[in-house]
Amino acid sequence: MRSMDDLFHALLQDVYFAEKELLKTLPKLAKKSANETLRQAFTDHRDETEEQIARLEKVFEAIGKKPRGKTSEAMLGIIAEGQHVIDEVEDDAVRDAGILAAAQAAEHYEIAHYGTLRAWAKLLGQDEVVELLSETLDEEKHADELLSSIAEGGVNESASERPQAAE
Amino acid sequence: MRSMDDLFHALLQDVYFAEKELLKTLPKLAKKSANETLRQAFTDHRDETEEQIARLEKVFEAIGKKPRGKTSEAMLGIIAEGQHVIDEVEDDAVRDAGILAAAQAAEHYEIAHYGTLRAWAKLLGQDEVVELLSETLDEEKHADELLSSIAEGGVNESASERPQAAE
Repeated sequence: MRSMDDLFHALLQDVYFAEKELLKTLPKLAKKSANETLRQAFTDHRDETEEQIARLEKVFEAIGKKPRGKTSEAMLGIIAEGQHVIDEVEDDAVRDAGILAAAQAAEHYEIAHYGTLRAWAKLLGQDEVVELLSETLDEEKHADELLSSIAEGGVNESASERPQAAE
Repeated sequence: MRSMDDLFHALLQDVYFAEKELLKTLPKLAKKSANETLRQAFTDHRDETEEQIARLEKVFEAIGKKPRGKTSEAMLGIIAEGQHVIDEVEDDAVRDAGILAAAQAAEHYEIAHYGTLRAWAKLLGQDEVVELLSETLDEEKHADELLSSIAEGGVNESASERPQAAE
């Protein structure tokens, strides 16, 4: 990697891989969520992720590259942590709280990287790319806020009441 | 894991591991940063991280557990991506931009997890823990903003001018 173009391309491949992994993971999270609002949020975000992937493909096109992912160990680690919660936690409400935490970690990973990609696209004078990335960045921030409001709106509270019930 | 206490403890161990890894990594990032402001930011954040680790140890104490980390594959992945940039990028300014991106991914990982831990501590009625986590969460958000302002204040711009110079 020698130039900002190379760096941009490498991070784009990372995010492309991450989104594709999330696309596969979100239906699993939805299936394992006991809370209906949480389940719906994951289902909706799965559809949103599909559009975000299409947007990334437009970004690849704009920089004259083929859409190709590059393994993101970080995103695989975040997904593995979510899977661990699904496997380990027996109580529905406690598991929902844990799934929610993993999902927010994934959102923040994306927020950080889309923020960086957008800043670099600005510098590279790629106005169309800046537009595409801004749209997705706004969606990711909104998804994170939605998850926070679901957590505050009941998932966490149900979970904190469970230890007593489980005795 | 059966209760919110178990879930809190597991995430606390994850973050404790992540902070300890960062404590080792930040001096390396500082050493490899060409931009002086960036280097100073990493050096300062290393000291801040030391205090954050001490705060986490108080949290372990408050919940009656020994401070012990649990491997965070996600944080190891983020650090590996930073290391990859250091190894692969020859140009100083381009490397700085890449290091900065990895550091912001690390900050966002922590912001997500401290946010979750604080929300759970509130529900568990751990007021002292909420205070400790709030303090760190504010520091992490501030660190992320500082990195953004360093990026906008010159690191990225220097980097985007390099490809031409390198021809």
